[in-house]
Amino acid sequence: MLVVKLGGTEGVNFGPICRDVAHLVQEGRSVVLVHGGSAEANALGEALGHPPRFVTSPSGFTSRYTDRKTLEIFAMAVLGRVNALLVEQLLALGVPAVGLSGMDGGLLRAKRKGAIRIIEGGKRKMLRGDYTGKIEDVHRDLLDRLLEGGYVPVVAPLAISHQGEMLNVDADRAAAALAAALGAEALVLLTAAPGLLERFPDESTLISRLPASRLEQAMQYAQGRMKKKVLAAQEAVQGGVARVIIADGRVEERPLLRALEGAGTWILAPGVSSP
Amino acid sequence: MLVVKLGGTEGVNFGPICRDVAHLVQEGRSVVLVHGGSAEANALGEALGHPPRFVTSPSGFTSRYTDRKTLEIFAMAVLGRVNALLVEQLLALGVPAVGLSGMDGGLLRAKRKGAIRIIEGGKRKMLRGDYTGKIEDVHRDLLDRLLEGGYVPVVAPLAISHQGEMLNVDADRAAAALAAALGAEALVLLTAAPGLLERFPDESTLISRLPASRLEQAMQYAQGRMKKKVLAAQEAVQGGVARVIIADGRVEERPLLRALEGAGTWILAPGVSSP
Repeated sequence: MLVVKLGGTEGVNFGPICRDVAHLVQEGRSVVLVHGGSAEANALGEALGHPPRFVTSPSGFTSRYTDRKTLEIFAMAVLGRVNALLVEQLLALGVPAVGLSGMDGGLLRAKRKGAIRIIEGGKRKMLRGDYTGKIEDVHRDLLDRLLEGGYVPVVAPLAISHQGEMLNVDADRAAAALAAALGAEALVLLTAAPGLLERFPDESTLISRLPASRLEQAMQYAQGRMKKKVLAAQEAVQGGVARVIIADGRVEERPLLRALEGAGTWILAPGVSSP
Repeated sequence: MLVVKLGGTEGVNFGPICRDVAHLVQEGRSVVLVHGGSAEANALGEALGHPPRFVTSPSGFTSRYTDRKTLEIFAMAVLGRVNALLVEQLLALGVPAVGLSGMDGGLLRAKRKGAIRIIEGGKRKMLRGDYTGKIEDVHRDLLDRLLEGGYVPVVAPLAISHQGEMLNVDADRAAAALAAALGAEALVLLTAAPGLLERFPDESTLISRLPASRLEQAMQYAQGRMKKKVLAAQEAVQGGVARVIIADGRVEERPLLRALEGAGTWILAPGVSSP
């Protein structure tokens, strides 16, 4: 059982990843795909006259402020575009893909943040009306049924709040939560970088093996969106996932298979070996 | 087992229909929902600078010409918007809805029309590059698994071609194909009219009961999109569905339950009685 997270269409090459998934499925592996789509959501928001507003949290994470309209645009982009195009590509390769969002069947239950703390002009502020969530519960029954039937679930990063509201969730952390709940042997995070770099953006400083005990430290040199991946890796390992692999999704040849063979940054739970 | 088709957000009121679905599910009924979304797709196309182009077939059906870009806009609207909003509403009512499209797991296989015959300026023409399809095969396994688990599938009108291409399909006919394949006891088509009218738009000429043997004749007085519903009813009855109900989806109070109790136009297979 593998959980693989890929970005939206930007910077990550769907075709080779889908071919690798087809290969793994033919070998009898169970695979769950999770994808993003922020770039598509931002572009769609621009095209529809509701451009994204970016905010920075006191701990340095940058995110999109998600009012209800932004949420609906996000859903159109991730579910109606990225998810549909992925399912189409996988089906064309003979993979019995099933497109889902984390809302479906209550798969991902999240706590709505509602008000978020931001730093603006050097000052701390509270911003209300946000529709992003933090995943609190995974209801895996739906995925179990699909996997038993030989299907390949493809999950868009939406969740449902405890009050029944659609929420936007971080796709890396959603993948981590799913990997933990499913007891996956590995979580692969494909991204537009060769892995975790000690001195960003110098790709020669790739960290190829990292014991999970050193993730806290890694948080200090991870830059930008890589911080979210390190956080997701931490959550996955805490949830019992033995291996988290952060690898290059831009590769034309066998990006996913190469990651599984040892490429990228392997984050290993105590006592777990790498290839 | 019931298959219920509702339109997009235009002219049909989601809230009361979702409440009725919640009621039926609580009573232990299996329900599959199929929805449209043409109005949303048209509005999104306008907003994105790719407005829909309507064409008329020699037999008088009006449809949207679907080039690849129109198809992708259609997918965003029906799957990323209508489907997501329906699933959200159903979940908030405690219904374990699962949003799907007809592509998922090869649920609806369709033959791509590719070139369509149209009438333009009084002349017959062929228009190429169309991505609509005619459903040829329903692979019901995915729905069976979901229904067994107590889930309520909510299906967007997309299908996959034999060559692995995403296609737009007519939602009424998709609902008919699903009802036939699932052996549903009834197919309910909710629409922005009280049912089939003998003299459109005079609502006092509602036909409340129609033997399936008189569907051919009904084709002559059905106007506009109602023609597609009559065609869908024909296909459902030919596929073994005993009752097809065309009823008013605009009703504020119990639209679906009222339809099941006898409202609207009941189309009955030979030997089948109405309430």
